[in-house]
Amino acid sequence: MNAPDNTARRFTESALAEHQPSSIADFHSWWAERLRAGVFEVAPIPFAELNGWYFAPDGGNLVHKSGRFFEIGGMHVAADGGESWSQPIINQPEIGILGILVKEFDGVLHCLLQAKMEPGNINTLQLSPTVQATRSNYTRVHGGNEIRYLEYFRGPKRGRILVDVLQSEQGMWCWRKHNRNMVVEVTGDIPEHEDFRWLPLSQVWRLLSVENLVNMNARTVLACLPLQRPPASAATAGSSFHEALYRSYEKGDGESRSLHSLTEIVSWFTEMKTRNEWRSSLITLDKVTRFSRTADAIADDDRNGFQIIARRVRAENREVTEWTQPLLAPRRQGLAVFLAREIMGVIHVLIRARPEPGLLDRVEMGPSVQLAPTGAVASVVGPEPFYEYAVGTDASRVRFDAVMSEEGGRFHHAQTRYQVIEVGDDVPVETPENYCWLTLDQIMELVRHGHYLTIEARSLLTCVHSLW
Amino acid sequence: MNAPDNTARRFTESALAEHQPSSIADFHSWWAERLRAGVFEVAPIPFAELNGWYFAPDGGNLVHKSGRFFEIGGMHVAADGGESWSQPIINQPEIGILGILVKEFDGVLHCLLQAKMEPGNINTLQLSPTVQATRSNYTRVHGGNEIRYLEYFRGPKRGRILVDVLQSEQGMWCWRKHNRNMVVEVTGDIPEHEDFRWLPLSQVWRLLSVENLVNMNARTVLACLPLQRPPASAATAGSSFHEALYRSYEKGDGESRSLHSLTEIVSWFTEMKTRNEWRSSLITLDKVTRFSRTADAIADDDRNGFQIIARRVRAENREVTEWTQPLLAPRRQGLAVFLAREIMGVIHVLIRARPEPGLLDRVEMGPSVQLAPTGAVASVVGPEPFYEYAVGTDASRVRFDAVMSEEGGRFHHAQTRYQVIEVGDDVPVETPENYCWLTLDQIMELVRHGHYLTIEARSLLTCVHSLW
Repeated sequence: MNAPDNTARRFTESALAEHQPSSIADFHSWWAERLRAGVFEVAPIPFAELNGWYFAPDGGNLVHKSGRFFEIGGMHVAADGGESWSQPIINQPEIGILGILVKEFDGVLHCLLQAKMEPGNINTLQLSPTVQATRSNYTRVHGGNEIRYLEYFRGPKRGRILVDVLQSEQGMWCWRKHNRNMVVEVTGDIPEHEDFRWLPLSQVWRLLSVENLVNMNARTVLACLPLQRPPASAATAGSSFHEALYRSYEKGDGESRSLHSLTEIVSWFTEMKTRNEWRSSLITLDKVTRFSRTADAIADDDRNGFQIIARRVRAENREVTEWTQPLLAPRRQGLAVFLAREIMGVIHVLIRARPEPGLLDRVEMGPSVQLAPTGAVASVVGPEPFYEYAVGTDASRVRFDAVMSEEGGRFHHAQTRYQVIEVGDDVPVETPENYCWLTLDQIMELVRHGHYLTIEARSLLTCVHSLW
Repeated sequence: MNAPDNTARRFTESALAEHQPSSIADFHSWWAERLRAGVFEVAPIPFAELNGWYFAPDGGNLVHKSGRFFEIGGMHVAADGGESWSQPIINQPEIGILGILVKEFDGVLHCLLQAKMEPGNINTLQLSPTVQATRSNYTRVHGGNEIRYLEYFRGPKRGRILVDVLQSEQGMWCWRKHNRNMVVEVTGDIPEHEDFRWLPLSQVWRLLSVENLVNMNARTVLACLPLQRPPASAATAGSSFHEALYRSYEKGDGESRSLHSLTEIVSWFTEMKTRNEWRSSLITLDKVTRFSRTADAIADDDRNGFQIIARRVRAENREVTEWTQPLLAPRRQGLAVFLAREIMGVIHVLIRARPEPGLLDRVEMGPSVQLAPTGAVASVVGPEPFYEYAVGTDASRVRFDAVMSEEGGRFHHAQTRYQVIEVGDDVPVETPENYCWLTLDQIMELVRHGHYLTIEARSLLTCVHSLW
């Protein structure tokens, strides 16, 4: 029988848990120790030195000999009005697990996070979920060591499921990629490994503002956690922003003060999907135009988007200690911004319906402002009318501002600046038709399901939570 | 500002509204009158007599000269374990509107339904939504008359949106087809047309059990309506089945008695999607094997699935009075069954995770038992272990049993027998891993979003509602 669910309350308590002033210092000592203990080497190599990867004779896709993992193929997009373009794309049909194990210590939920190296990370180690594994990974296609703690996410030893939902990833770089975002609670003794550490949510949130520390996979799983409205007493010295922020977590069901009902929001989103008339399709890599392949890279001719490169990795705390793989290397740092405004005493976040050609359902809800798209993708996405609020704003209104990395297992040095910016009457309640104001409770209700929030919006949702 | 939402209460009242004994008789008089008034002729023609449709020289797809509406192409499915097959498929990328207009009369919500002819209907007229129109239809690609009442669903005259969600259609016959399921409330004067009639929900539900009357589009939109737990006093003479059924509509949020939480259900569904390893893709019609094209049909060689045929239509109450089009004609009647069981005093419905190769997200939640798949599709779907409960059951346990039609605008004489069958301890609470017991409130919570319930499951949901 389904017991009354107090998960949201327990995560809320974990997020408000006081921690010793020393605990963050302890974390950093552990982190410094992990950095010293690991041996990580990532070296550029020409494609010819990739081991197990080759360009398929039929079509030129860059594939793995197992037929698994992922491949670099091509995507063709026929945009509205006859425009069209093509680009390389990461095609990974299989669904992996991004899982965080949680456990109560002294009555407070803690998350088991991992110091994990990925070849594309700008700084080797980042704070990662307990488990991040493709299906090929955990079915051991590469013949590596066992994945630690995986048994708590699958099979008979599995813990209690608190979150388990398929979510999309970058629709500009990946073809219909989905991962399973899981949070599993365990109660028994869990063996501790030196690369892993139990942290209450309050500490994880504090670490979010450290540059390039909490990785993309941890951010997206954290975004799927249920939370409830924190008690008003938790607000910092009666800050009106925080009080309005807390009210934004109040459960909806018609009584809450939100600009739109959830029905209206789903209707708006339905309309946005209906209007989208471009089509995208997979093509082979040799059909992609305006990219040129050399011995070392498949590079965009205009040097304005990204290139595909290859790396050799040596790591001593990973399941396989040496491997080679391709990576997608964007040319520029991205920007993803949530504009947050008090409306009727409640913080609302400005969401934009964002078409991305690699998304399964083509349109998801994304940040208020987002930069990174190259010229070609921009023709699908359109202009960013709220960009000025992200750059020219009064510093006191910048509530969150940190550069963080995208998935280092697929992307090379892909960084995004994440900002949460408070706005006032200068951004009107009436929006262009492809934007909509949502409360945090509404966003959290939608993120319980797939196909709603883009990966960047989910990262930003975690950033907003960290403002408590 | 978002007003408190009493839509579920108002539809519940409409479903419980008493109606005069004469009102159903009145309905049937009107219906008989509509049948007499219309002139409908549907005649078989060879493909060569299709007007505006032709087989594309490049690939052989059967397409419309406008490039719009839909086309008959091919689908290739590579199933798990190396099996694969191909078949013709209806490819209609554009999203249409299936919309029901509602309005209060004497304080009771009424639905505006239409007596509408479709060329594939076995009986010409069926009871249809206020509006059912593809985008090509309502942007007038075929140059027909205006679509009645469309202005209440789009543009400045639009009414208040009560439901607006994208839902899938048959994933065995259509490629990623979605339609917008809308319910819109209006308050002002609405001109009445003789083909349309306002009905309270209680009457619509009563009409559901009439063979081939309420069409598929009406059923799916009705399935998306919000409802709440009816008062116990509404239960028929203290029937314990009805009391348990009513409790199944109780809002969840942890306090209700359901076998699983919504989190567990979404987790189960996520697991089912993860396991699915076949791939489907569009191919051209001339690449499809085991189907043969003659002057009149593209027919399955084994006579066990369906064929593509052509029809000429003459209708005098439609926006265009004469046209030709292809249709998909299944060989057999389908069967779709919900097994309903009291668990902890609450009716639960047995849902099966159903892979269908034409579905965008590949797997949705479908009936407990479903027949129609040909041998090839059955290799993806697998056996139907609960089939015996659908056929050999005690008549007193058959709560709903009616043959209804699938979409007559695309399918020719496609009928499905819909059954809701009460079961007891003979169907255990423990299920095979691809099944799950859900309460009606949980199913209704999921149907607020796309990608969850198949079209057959949505039809059955409406059938269950009609048992009130």
